[in-house]
Amino acid sequence: MPSTACLADTDGQPGGISGDTTVGRKIHRLVTDLYPICRSITGDGLRTTLRKIGEQVPLEIHEVPTGTRVFDWTVPKEWNITDAYVKNSAGERVIDFRKSNLHVVGYSLPMHEWLSLTELREHLHASPEHPDWIPYRTSYYRDTWGFCLSHNDMLALKEDTYEVCIAATLRDGFLSYGECYLPGDTRDEVLISCHTCHPSLCNDNLSGIAIAVHLARALSTRRRRYSYRFVFAPATIGAITWLARNEGAVSRIKHGLVLACLGDPGQSTYKKSRRGNAQIDRVVAHVLRHSGSAYEIRDFTPFGYDDRQYCSPGFDLPVGSLMRTPNGCYPEYHTSADDLEFVRPEALADSYSKCMKVIGILEANTTYMNQSPKCEPQLGRRGIYDGVGPGGLLPVEELAILWVLNLSDGNHSLLDIAERADMDFDVVLRASDTLREHDLLVETGRRGGLEEVRHG
Amino acid sequence: MPSTACLADTDGQPGGISGDTTVGRKIHRLVTDLYPICRSITGDGLRTTLRKIGEQVPLEIHEVPTGTRVFDWTVPKEWNITDAYVKNSAGERVIDFRKSNLHVVGYSLPMHEWLSLTELREHLHASPEHPDWIPYRTSYYRDTWGFCLSHNDMLALKEDTYEVCIAATLRDGFLSYGECYLPGDTRDEVLISCHTCHPSLCNDNLSGIAIAVHLARALSTRRRRYSYRFVFAPATIGAITWLARNEGAVSRIKHGLVLACLGDPGQSTYKKSRRGNAQIDRVVAHVLRHSGSAYEIRDFTPFGYDDRQYCSPGFDLPVGSLMRTPNGCYPEYHTSADDLEFVRPEALADSYSKCMKVIGILEANTTYMNQSPKCEPQLGRRGIYDGVGPGGLLPVEELAILWVLNLSDGNHSLLDIAERADMDFDVVLRASDTLREHDLLVETGRRGGLEEVRHG
Amino acid sequence: MPSTACLADTDGQPGGISGDTTVGRKIHRLVTDLYPICRSITGDGLRTTLRKIGEQVPLEIHEVPTGTRVFDWTVPKEWNITDAYVKNSAGERVIDFRKSNLHVVGYSLPMHEWLSLTELREHLHASPEHPDWIPYRTSYYRDTWGFCLSHNDMLALKEDTYEVCIAATLRDGFLSYGECYLPGDTRDEVLISCHTCHPSLCNDNLSGIAIAVHLARALSTRRRRYSYRFVFAPATIGAITWLARNEGAVSRIKHGLVLACLGDPGQSTYKKSRRGNAQIDRVVAHVLRHSGSAYEIRDFTPFGYDDRQYCSPGFDLPVGSLMRTPNGCYPEYHTSADDLEFVRPEALADSYSKCMKVIGILEANTTYMNQSPKCEPQLGRRGIYDGVGPGGLLPVEELAILWVLNLSDGNHSLLDIAERADMDFDVVLRASDTLREHDLLVETGRRGGLEEVRHG
Repeated sequence: MPSTACLADTDGQPGGISGDTTVGRKIHRLVTDLYPICRSITGDGLRTTLRKIGEQVPLEIHEVPTGTRVFDWTVPKEWNITDAYVKNSAGERVIDFRKSNLHVVGYSLPMHEWLSLTELREHLHASPEHPDWIPYRTSYYRDTWGFCLSHNDMLALKEDTYEVCIAATLRDGFLSYGECYLPGDTRDEVLISCHTCHPSLCNDNLSGIAIAVHLARALSTRRRRYSYRFVFAPATIGAITWLARNEGAVSRIKHGLVLACLGDPGQSTYKKSRRGNAQIDRVVAHVLRHSGSAYEIRDFTPFGYDDRQYCSPGFDLPVGSLMRTPNGCYPEYHTSADDLEFVRPEALADSYSKCMKVIGILEANTTYMNQSPKCEPQLGRRGIYDGVGPGGLLPVEELAILWVLNLSDGNHSLLDIAERADMDFDVVLRASDTLREHDLLVETGRRGGLEEVRHG
Repeated sequence: MPSTACLADTDGQPGGISGDTTVGRKIHRLVTDLYPICRSITGDGLRTTLRKIGEQVPLEIHEVPTGTRVFDWTVPKEWNITDAYVKNSAGERVIDFRKSNLHVVGYSLPMHEWLSLTELREHLHASPEHPDWIPYRTSYYRDTWGFCLSHNDMLALKEDTYEVCIAATLRDGFLSYGECYLPGDTRDEVLISCHTCHPSLCNDNLSGIAIAVHLARALSTRRRRYSYRFVFAPATIGAITWLARNEGAVSRIKHGLVLACLGDPGQSTYKKSRRGNAQIDRVVAHVLRHSGSAYEIRDFTPFGYDDRQYCSPGFDLPVGSLMRTPNGCYPEYHTSADDLEFVRPEALADSYSKCMKVIGILEANTTYMNQSPKCEPQLGRRGIYDGVGPGGLLPVEELAILWVLNLSDGNHSLLDIAERADMDFDVVLRASDTLREHDLLVETGRRGGLEEVRHG
Repeated sequence: MPSTACLADTDGQPGGISGDTTVGRKIHRLVTDLYPICRSITGDGLRTTLRKIGEQVPLEIHEVPTGTRVFDWTVPKEWNITDAYVKNSAGERVIDFRKSNLHVVGYSLPMHEWLSLTELREHLHASPEHPDWIPYRTSYYRDTWGFCLSHNDMLALKEDTYEVCIAATLRDGFLSYGECYLPGDTRDEVLISCHTCHPSLCNDNLSGIAIAVHLARALSTRRRRYSYRFVFAPATIGAITWLARNEGAVSRIKHGLVLACLGDPGQSTYKKSRRGNAQIDRVVAHVLRHSGSAYEIRDFTPFGYDDRQYCSPGFDLPVGSLMRTPNGCYPEYHTSADDLEFVRPEALADSYSKCMKVIGILEANTTYMNQSPKCEPQLGRRGIYDGVGPGGLLPVEELAILWVLNLSDGNHSLLDIAERADMDFDVVLRASDTLREHDLLVETGRRGGLEEVRHG
């Protein structure tokens, strides 16, 4: 039973990114709440993040032991850190993990030594292009350690003997990820995936996490044609682990989105699935084209977020990636400048609203058969058509009715019709609702795969 | 036996719209003759129009009784009008049907009353944008009445008691339409359709009617590969009635054109069939591209003339629509300014010539098989190829011969070849005639459907 | 066993046409050596040319008797010429074959007469647009004779009685052509064809002949996946004769190039095969797109060099035509100005290098199957992936590795991948070599047809 219901966005305000909004402030609040936590691809920071997500939406948390084989990979040791610093000979912390978790290279080995500045420097990372920003670095799968600091702070370091300490552990443990599953009328699934391994970085990817949480909250109270699966997992190894443990079930995924970098002030960017013409690709393109703001559609490349895994040739899932400014394309990317100021409530609200519109179309898109296909039915008699007015123009609502009748031959979905007529999907959907009420349309089937009736 | 014969246009002068022509004046004379008649979707004006058409071409006139079900519609009561006026208290006709039949809203109910200006005004229609023109209005299927007048005349009406009279009848009767059928070598049909329900409006659609009549006259004296069916019927209900009564026979229609708005000075416009790639679509595009004048090709939309019915999903016939300036796109549209001055003999001649060229290609297009397909045949020995001349250029006639030989592999029609070679169809046709005379080509079949041999 | 080996061009220097090169000078030397010979479609000049080619590469010379039927054609009589002149009454040679073999219309009948200037003029050919150049004319299959001379020389001729002599023979003999066959790992063939019938004209087509010879020399010392067949034959009748005598074997031709006009200073031009999307079409387009210089790709037309025969509908071979400025598009075309100055060593070297690059891709292109298709394999562990560096960019070599893994699903050749990734083929090839070394790829088959194992 498709309807416009799902499109009604009760706490979002679609369109444009002008002005703050309630939902934007709520999403930003969740970003703010998660910001201080030191996340990595394993460990307690990740676990805490999942627990906080679980306070907002029903979340099943999975713990996968170190050493588990996941395709070509192995779940690594779990890394935890409590403190880290570099002290000068006066005992002052010149680099202090307590001030920013970006100061420590992710997965640094535990250590405690006294080093000369020259020795220390080999383990320091800074970015001369942005001398005030701390860069973000990791060393997964490499046994090393390091500190990151602003270029200016690095220049200020004097010859001295430095006490260097990383109070971390790297031991057998677990990789954690969370799943929020919202069953729908069918077992066909929409996958929403976001990576949860970055420490204090807001756009990449607390923006994605917080929007996913609010999408799940909004969807949880509505009737859903599709089942929705939200995966919160560390990048790469987390997605690979999830796919390895759910290999047999991925054929249920009919549409998917990787959410990342959704809070910056830039325009929306959609990176297509590997298939390039999946329904999700067409739906997102439709939403962006009718959004009234500038946007960019990019072809698939095998370099990006976890669409790399979902779109590997052995899976080739219909999963695209929605962003604003993509990874690597904004200077704040992977630096301390990707902070709470950089992500904006209005941009978060706009991204959220576009996701809801995408979901609305996925839910409502269907194919009808015109029950009066030979010539036009007499619409005037039914009160749903006035024809050309004095100005010689047909109102768009009546034109939409003619389009839906003309193309509802069993071969065109509502989305096909909206694209051919170059009309917003909602206009076409309302026309189809009107015609259905007058028994002029009968639904003949959903696009995008046979629906499987849900058990239980 | 295709040949160039059909392309020779004995009384038209193809190309451009410069200069008056014999055929243009003849067509304009028929427009002039039909102009005064008060037509509607039923009634004696329509009947008179068909009778006058029948004086020019063999025409079978059909009368369909009121109340006949035609798909989702019902043939309405027949409307006839003899007089109508609004008289002021001095007894002067301030609105007079005898001056213009546009003054009465089509299908107005009969009435005779005395009204104040305020009461009268609710039934008056005028157009402030063009204060001197009388707009054209109808009220089929709605029980009401009204008068149309120029905005300036409406402003001049004073407070008074007006005698308002519409001497009309709305009774059980008939809907009339006419068919001119010209049998050809096969029973495959070309449909030419135009609407005949508009009163004193010249471009819409006396231009279409008069051109259709002259096409039928020209074709009647020639050998025809296709059978031709000209349908003269009121818009919408007439086309629906015709389709309902000929439902089983429409599969014979291989190509079709709706003709309307063909006499204004604007450029030619072709609106494609719903299929979008029917042979008629390709042929008209070819003719316009090689016409030497500007033109526009529009994609199908379900809003237009009777292509709405022919291209409804239950029929989906290969019927496009040839116009000059389309309906609603010129200010004179549906006003008294669409008069005998607005349609020009040279524009009518140009439209006619393009129709004849389209028909010529439909008649002549076929597919050949090169009988010497391995390497080029030795054309020089046959005297049909000189090769490159001193200037290093091959004459277009010889290049056409090479194209026809190269692509006559059974998969390419002459039209395909003309399009691939970017040459006028006639050049390619002449090359194929030459090659056929030298036994280098054998016809393998017509494009666009199996030909059915005509009985009798 | 594909590898980059074949791409290493030991005596060419790919890219641009700046600067002379060793291979360019070698090719130009061969052009210079062949320049003085008076070639035609039969005769001793053609025979001498083939013998000189045979000094450079293994060449089988075929002699086909006059009168042999070859499809729609007949091998003509053999024409030989030893001298020709026009002498004035003072006994001075005012036109002298010994100065330029272009002075005599090819296939002129033998004759010896005394003529007035008026009578002589009917047999003279000159080009007023380029008054200093001698045009090139032939009269195959027409029994006539003529002389060509510069327009200025023609104007200088005075009233006189001229002794006109053409010391030629036109007798039963043979049509000669040569084939250089280099067997490869498979019997699938690459055809390289060039016409050998033009007398002292350098670009058309000594450039093609000399480049073909050097390609054959370079390929003769390498391991070859494909077998290569170089055909040196007179235009039209030679190609037709070759096709008639090899009709049953042409299905082995998987890719082919007609080489002509490759030494002028203009940009490279590729004329596609009739198929338009053959692998050779895509490969040449790829090479030109990544060449760093301007180029043009033209659609097939049935007018050109011997692609006219190879691409006739009965053969439709995947044979394109590589040129610089095409025939008829440069003023020197078919005149004495197409001389040793007009063709440049650097242009010849550039054309040669592009041919070698095309052959390198044909040799190396194949399709792999990713052996770790579910998610990405862990490349870092294998030392072949560092990921994003400090600048946020992935090196192109690593991006190529991701592309090859992502698209190696059995449906994409390396060329497909290079095109989709918009990368030079060599970068993709190197990535595939790396991945194959790590057992991450297995070859699943060549594109472009089943390979036939070579006997013996």
